[in-house]
Order: sequence, then structure tokens, then C-alpha cells
Amino acid sequence: MAQFVWMGRMNWNVPTLLPPGSVPDLKTWPTTVDAAITGGKKDGEKLLHDLCAELAHWQRILYAQREQALLVILQGMDTSGKDGTIRHVFRLVNPNGVHVAAFSRPTALELSHDYLWRIHQRAPARGEIVIFDRSHYEDIVTVRVNDLRPASVWKRRYKHVNAFEEMLADEGITIVKFFLHIDRAEQKKRLEARLRDPEKHWKFDPSDLVARERWDAYMAAYPEVLSRCNFGHAPWHIIPANKKWVRNILVASILVQTMRKLGMSFPKAHMDLARVRID
Amino acid sequence: MAQFVWMGRMNWNVPTLLPPGSVPDLKTWPTTVDAAITGGKKDGEKLLHDLCAELAHWQRILYAQREQALLVILQGMDTSGKDGTIRHVFRLVNPNGVHVAAFSRPTALELSHDYLWRIHQRAPARGEIVIFDRSHYEDIVTVRVNDLRPASVWKRRYKHVNAFEEMLADEGITIVKFFLHIDRAEQKKRLEARLRDPEKHWKFDPSDLVARERWDAYMAAYPEVLSRCNFGHAPWHIIPANKKWVRNILVASILVQTMRKLGMSFPKAHMDLARVRID
Repeated sequence: MAQFVWMGRMNWNVPTLLPPGSVPDLKTWPTTVDAAITGGKKDGEKLLHDLCAELAHWQRILYAQREQALLVILQGMDTSGKDGTIRHVFRLVNPNGVHVAAFSRPTALELSHDYLWRIHQRAPARGEIVIFDRSHYEDIVTVRVNDLRPASVWKRRYKHVNAFEEMLADEGITIVKFFLHIDRAEQKKRLEARLRDPEKHWKFDPSDLVARERWDAYMAAYPEVLSRCNFGHAPWHIIPANKKWVRNILVASILVQTMRKLGMSFPKAHMDLARVRID
Repeated sequence: MAQFVWMGRMNWNVPTLLPPGSVPDLKTWPTTVDAAITGGKKDGEKLLHDLCAELAHWQRILYAQREQALLVILQGMDTSGKDGTIRHVFRLVNPNGVHVAAFSRPTALELSHDYLWRIHQRAPARGEIVIFDRSHYEDIVTVRVNDLRPASVWKRRYKHVNAFEEMLADEGITIVKFFLHIDRAEQKKRLEARLRDPEKHWKFDPSDLVARERWDAYMAAYPEVLSRCNFGHAPWHIIPANKKWVRNILVASILVQTMRKLGMSFPKAHMDLARVRID
């Protein structure tokens, strides 16, 4: 196995894992980290590169083995950096074994089905990494905040979602969930950048302003899904995400540590390869 | 609403519904019914026609409303008549709103996913009737009898399957499950017919003989899924299925009674149609 030396360089102590049973207070949960890395963002970039390289290493083994799978779920307010996290953290992996499923507003066909129908279709096969850019958690949080269905409907979804994730875990899928946590002031800056920069105009959606108006309602709804759907087999990490480079390093390091724990190695040859002659 | 008069003619008292909490003894559960219908099979055919007509009536309303859905799950030993039941009971419905999903041996792609992945994809949309010809119950019973996965794997599937069906029910899908119950002597006759009749040769599969050898193991495994996955929102009916025409009438009448209870009617016009003028 290749040697990965980033760990010693990462002398941060940032608790991102939400302890099972606890309810996070998002108003006090940090959105920034005073990262104790010598050289700041510049050294951070080198560190991220090494993390991405190790992630790519483990992804190759996962793909070769085709026994386990990794499901990464990203949630967060608009502009919290879901897209940027995917672009940066997974930049060195082989796209052949890594797929992104973005769940935006459901189509008419999707709405005609149970809400987990479109989600389950995109769950990873053995050997794959799948990243959910938004997920079934929108079917609780967004439905609740915007009053799209009666409370009796979204309230029973906690139970469904927990059972669904437990089934996936039982079937060999490792699940890691990230809530990318920014504050309202940071969102203002990022939305203004979308208005200012012609290359970001396509990302501006007036409905983001409606969601921004309901910021407090989201901050009240999220702690409930974070605490009620948080188990050892599918834990939530709350990532301070105001600084993009810090966010990337945190997510990448959690994924690398997750992959290390899977105890994977390249499959053994199933014949005596030394005796194989190639004509 | 059309008048349906079959009910008075059906003076059978055949208990097919498995009471929740009870474990059926398949060795004593009847495989035949001494049907008390005047005229026997001939009158039975008229009765079935009327049942099928009423089922088609309700299916039109279900389709027009697009609010609810019906999932019919058929299980049974080889030759128990899953295919024939579908052909006879659903012969009058509009195929546009009725779909059959047959789950035979999983493909390599399906095996690379969790076992509910292929099942969930075929779950009905609102307005649809979907019939599962075999189902996720094979992933417990067949896997168990043939020792395809360790007991620890299939044992936790009871929990998954119950949670999955509960989620579907919560989302507006009515579920009815039928175990088509034949005895071993009847299977012998039907398998021999497949050997004898050139038009049935395509249906003969030597693996059916292997399953037949394990008859007792199946009869020991089925009562466990029938009793452990049996709830008011997704009940099991055990259908005496040695006589095909009796089986059809029982299944059709249960489906008609299920549809009646949904309290459906054609959607009201959402404008004053009397004032619409067609040029």
C-alpha cells in the first residue's frame, strides 16, 4: 500500500461527528475553524491533494473488490458548497466507479411515486461510490418548511428513512452524511457573487431567496433530521463550511478515515499467475 | 356507478385471510374448496367474468384519480398458477394502467445492488395497479432454502421487507399479498403436463425439479414469512389453488373487495362543464 503522510500534518481537533442521541444547536455550532495548519490555505491545498490521492487509492480497491459500496450524502442550505465539495474532494478518483446523483425538484413522474423511489434507484452497486447532492432529507426538511404536505406525512418519513438506510447498511453499503454548515452572512456573500459574476449567473435561482427568507425555519427543521436520523451505521457530520478549503479538507479526511476502516485490500489472484504465459 | 350483482351469488365461506400474529400450518391449510356455487365451474366462469368487470371498473377510477395505487404480490411454488391468475383475473382491465413485474433469477446488475433495488423500481405510481409475479419474498425464502446467503443475511430481511411495505402503504399504496397454495400431488400433475404438451415445453425448467425435491423445506420456510410479514396494511391471503377456476374467483373477489374499500369515485369536474362550448 502507498504511504500516506497527511495525518501527522493535520493537527486540527475539529469535532464534526454528531454524537448519536444529541440534538445540535446550529446557531452555536461553528461555521468556521481557526485551522491550525502551518501555512494556512496554501499548505492546506497540499494536504487536500494528499487526501484526494489516498481517497482515489481506496476507491480503486473498492472498485476492484466489488464487495462493499460507499454512499456519501450531502445536505446544506443553498450556496453551502455541495457542488464545490464534490468537485474538489473527488477530483482524483476514477469517474468510472464514482457517480453523483443530484436530487433537485422532483419531476412529475417522480412525484407520482413514493418519495424514496427516485432515491433508491441511485443507491450504489457494490464497488461504487455514489454521492447524493441533496437527498431524501429534502422530503422531510423542505416539505416541512414549505408546508408542501401535512405534518402527518413528513413526520412518518423519519422512520422510513432510518429503515431505508439501515437496509442499505445491512446490504454492505457504508453511509456517511455531511451537513455543510454556513451562516446567513456567508450565504449573502455567495448569493451576491452569483449576481455579480456572469459565469455564476446560471446558478442564481430566485427561489433561493425564498428559502433564504425561511432561514430560521430551516435551522429549526434541520436539527430534528440530524438528531433523529443519526446512527453508527449512517452518521451525520456537521461541517463548518464558511471557508471552502477547510470544508474540503474536513470532508476528504472523514472519507479517507471511513475508507481506511473498511479493511480493504486488492483481491488476491485466483490462480497461480506466475505460471501464466502470454504468447 | 354500475351495478354489480355477483356478491349474492358467491355464497362461499372460504377464509383466506391469514389473521395477523398467527402462523399457518401449510400441511393442513386447504388446497381445494368444495365450492358451493350452483352449477359448479360453468356458473363460476360467469361469476368470474362479473368480478373481472367490476375490477376493471375500479381500475378506471383508480387511473382517473391518480391518488392511490394497488400493489398485488403473488407468491407460490412452481406451477402454483401465478401466471394463470394474472391472465384470468386481469383480463378486462386497461393494460395502460396495469403492469406486471416478474422477478425471476436476478441479473448480474441486480445482484450488484441491494436486493430491494430492483423491486422498488417496479413499485406502482399513483393511479397504477402493479402485480408482482414473485417478489422480495424470494430473497428470504429461496435464499434460505437454497442456502445462497448466511442465515444472518436473510433473517434481517424480514425487518427490511416490513419497513419497505409500510413505507409504500404510508405513501398511498394499497398492498394485497397472495400465497397460491397447491399440494405436492397437484404440482406433479402440472409438471407432467408441461412435459406432455408441446405448447407447455417452454415452461419446463429442470430447476423446478430441484425446488420440488426441497418441497418440505419450502413448506417450513413459507409459514415464517407469511406470519412475520403480515399486517393490516399488507395482509397475506392463502389461496386454495388446486382448482384453477376457484383460485381465480377467490383472488378476483378479494381484489374487488379491496378496491371497494378505497372509497373511490371519478374525479369531479374542476370547472363548469355545462358552460364549455366546443366550436
